[in-house]
Amino acid sequence: MARQGFVSSITRQSEDFPAWYNDVVLKAELASYSPVRGCMIIRPYGYSVWESMRDELDRHIKRTGHQNVYFPLFVPRSLLEKEAEHVEGFDPQVAWVTHAGGKELDEWLAIRPTSEALIAEVVKDWIQSYRDLPLLMNLWNNVVRWELRTRLFLRTAEFLWQEAHTFHATEAEAAAEVATGLEAYRAVSEDWLAIPVVRGVKSRAETFPGAVYSQAIEAMMRDRKALQAGTSHMLGQNFARSAGIEFLDRDNQRKAPYGTSWGFSTRMVGATIMAHGDDSGLVLPPNVAPQQLVIVPIFRSEDDRAAVDAAIDGLEPLLRDVTTASGPLRYTVDWREESPGFKYNHWELRGVPLRLEIGPRDVAAGQAVLVRRLDRAKESLPMSALGEQLPLRLAAYQAELFRRALDFRADNTHHVDTYDEFKRVLEEKGGFLMAPWCGDAGCEKQINTDTGATTRVVPFDSPDEAGYCLVDGRPSERRVLFARAY
Amino acid sequence: MARQGFVSSITRQSEDFPAWYNDVVLKAELASYSPVRGCMIIRPYGYSVWESMRDELDRHIKRTGHQNVYFPLFVPRSLLEKEAEHVEGFDPQVAWVTHAGGKELDEWLAIRPTSEALIAEVVKDWIQSYRDLPLLMNLWNNVVRWELRTRLFLRTAEFLWQEAHTFHATEAEAAAEVATGLEAYRAVSEDWLAIPVVRGVKSRAETFPGAVYSQAIEAMMRDRKALQAGTSHMLGQNFARSAGIEFLDRDNQRKAPYGTSWGFSTRMVGATIMAHGDDSGLVLPPNVAPQQLVIVPIFRSEDDRAAVDAAIDGLEPLLRDVTTASGPLRYTVDWREESPGFKYNHWELRGVPLRLEIGPRDVAAGQAVLVRRLDRAKESLPMSALGEQLPLRLAAYQAELFRRALDFRADNTHHVDTYDEFKRVLEEKGGFLMAPWCGDAGCEKQINTDTGATTRVVPFDSPDEAGYCLVDGRPSERRVLFARAY
Repeated sequence: MARQGFVSSITRQSEDFPAWYNDVVLKAELASYSPVRGCMIIRPYGYSVWESMRDELDRHIKRTGHQNVYFPLFVPRSLLEKEAEHVEGFDPQVAWVTHAGGKELDEWLAIRPTSEALIAEVVKDWIQSYRDLPLLMNLWNNVVRWELRTRLFLRTAEFLWQEAHTFHATEAEAAAEVATGLEAYRAVSEDWLAIPVVRGVKSRAETFPGAVYSQAIEAMMRDRKALQAGTSHMLGQNFARSAGIEFLDRDNQRKAPYGTSWGFSTRMVGATIMAHGDDSGLVLPPNVAPQQLVIVPIFRSEDDRAAVDAAIDGLEPLLRDVTTASGPLRYTVDWREESPGFKYNHWELRGVPLRLEIGPRDVAAGQAVLVRRLDRAKESLPMSALGEQLPLRLAAYQAELFRRALDFRADNTHHVDTYDEFKRVLEEKGGFLMAPWCGDAGCEKQINTDTGATTRVVPFDSPDEAGYCLVDGRPSERRVLFARAY
Repeated sequence: MARQGFVSSITRQSEDFPAWYNDVVLKAELASYSPVRGCMIIRPYGYSVWESMRDELDRHIKRTGHQNVYFPLFVPRSLLEKEAEHVEGFDPQVAWVTHAGGKELDEWLAIRPTSEALIAEVVKDWIQSYRDLPLLMNLWNNVVRWELRTRLFLRTAEFLWQEAHTFHATEAEAAAEVATGLEAYRAVSEDWLAIPVVRGVKSRAETFPGAVYSQAIEAMMRDRKALQAGTSHMLGQNFARSAGIEFLDRDNQRKAPYGTSWGFSTRMVGATIMAHGDDSGLVLPPNVAPQQLVIVPIFRSEDDRAAVDAAIDGLEPLLRDVTTASGPLRYTVDWREESPGFKYNHWELRGVPLRLEIGPRDVAAGQAVLVRRLDRAKESLPMSALGEQLPLRLAAYQAELFRRALDFRADNTHHVDTYDEFKRVLEEKGGFLMAPWCGDAGCEKQINTDTGATTRVVPFDSPDEAGYCLVDGRPSERRVLFARAY
């Protein structure tokens, strides 16, 4: 469907990471800019990657007892303003509908930046008794947050996401649900996208507006910056109280339920690009790759072409039977009238994990050459072995991408104990900085102003370790993850 | 997840069809009203029905070579106004964003009522050569059309839908694509939702604003009114010309491509309710039923309960292996502390196709009682035969719903030749009226003003048949389908 043409070269990743990123997104035809300020167009190749991670997350969400629902795009102003912290956090980013059906509206309607306020108002009628709890809902939809500086996939005025909203009788159940949401994101990030993540709690300043606390998973990109890959919020009774939700508990007392919400968005397509890509373009994990294998026929003469064609025809029944971790093998044969080199570049830019080269000599020998996108490692395989070997090769490739990202993160995570060291390491090396912090918002802000780094999370697996805050020297009980972030 | 409680009775279908419809939607918990004017909340049970038809249609769309993409929610005013007929058709229904990010916008942004205008503008950059065609795209999204009178699922200010947008080098290819879209809708309606449809061409007055012609499928509801179940539009070069799209054809001439668009929305959930439901509530085709089978344990004593429980436990491995036309068998066991009668009503209201009653005597005899929702027909089956019989019973039930709807439509389709007869039959019997019409918009409008009926389609399979227009007596070449419609 895409227009054929020359493969344009892309900026080298090491030279200019943001330019590299934009080149990859545009030239691999993942997305493009739109005539609408801050909004993007997700093209078929990018949408297919999104569909893969969306469907996998949807399976997790359903398996853990959540049900999909739909709530309106519009949130009346009076509802959005019910939870004070919430509206303060979102108001500057809201897009407002003021006219509709040829008239000015009596009340302005916000395009949802997120749906907590509306949902709390609605479920008030659904939650009367402890028997109505837990209420476990999930929405796949679009939201709008008016951003001044936008980046394709990473920060757009409109984006696609999933927002789960749950209500529970007790705080303990809600806390367990926050963990369930975070685990779904960890699983999709690590097991599906091959992106290792650090799980932890956000600082107060980084907490979702209206939440009691927020948990998040943080991933390292190839430029060593952090990207928040999913957040799960304990809303406590905040929204329930603002909306006036009350249920009759087993003990015959009327109580406000505890809420959670958690979200995962199209910015994860951007994360997938930045966590694995290289100078040649995209490097896609087999689970999300729209094509997992491209077959490039090699020939000069018409006779050779016929021989190669027959060999590929012979392979197809075998390939159609191949099952991978993400379903039937997705492959394509590139018969375009272009040189093999052109085709290699084309598919490398698009991050297709495996390439199969078949020429007349291969046909004669009953074999084919399998080339891995990541390192261009080549091996000859008997054609008859492909049915058995391809799933193994793809699984190994998926595992290797994860291990590579894990190693990269380990190599770029630094323990620092003083502010001078912090600044020096951040400047010279970047990456994740594990450093002591007293927990004070003033110190956190100071670090951000001085260095551009923010607290990402207090990691769950950060051990108790007495230290002294980078800024004011007050005691710190454990290290916190700092980084410059998307 | 739904709140347990008494099954409230619903209005009888024959007494007050609109009240019956609302009762079913609300009490079967398919959807509910929202605090946002004209917008609905789709609850888990309704969303699951939508997911089933959406996924089936998505498979059709992909199988026929279309790729999913995403375009922005917002359409700048100047773009919407490029195609004159189009804006005239949609302007009264548009919701406008005028403020965002704390400022008044320089240009108002329409919430998309449909995406033709924006897409034509964008693909201008993608379509340069005949090699870039055909361009076959599909979007799953939400659209907003400000409606004065709304009905849950059937007519809401915001709805979910799929909109396909394609571009072709020739008019003939575009015409074939219009047929491809219509066939996808016919297949989903008839083969998945068991709703027979009449395919045909819309009159000029009923044509999509900006299209050259529109095709549609029309279905009959249980109140004998018509519902347009999907439309496929030949856009010709209209939008391409307005947006200035040109491609270099094989003959080295610059030409405007031909476009099509076609859409299918959540109103089809409403159609499914109204095409099959009865006085007891929903009647769902097995393919879309969130639960295809409910098991109701029957017991009085604790001993009986234990015996029934053990028998159901013994059944489960067998049930988990059952595959139906729409995937693994979806079933639930209702162990709630309510009477069997309460449970029968509960699941009948929700339209679950089959009910399995298992009591101690059944256990002793190694059998169970299978009851069909549609006609409450009962039969005893050996438990060991269920694995084999359930898929057959569900397939037969699906086929029977279709046949029943087909018979109902045949019984309520009337050929009339004079305007008096038309009015009398419409008033006394309702249904589909096949009548001669000269094709003049004035006559069409007259009929609508006089009777409330509209031309639905000129059916593809309406044979040539000379006659005289109901209104002005001018010659008519074939009968046209008239009906009162949703």
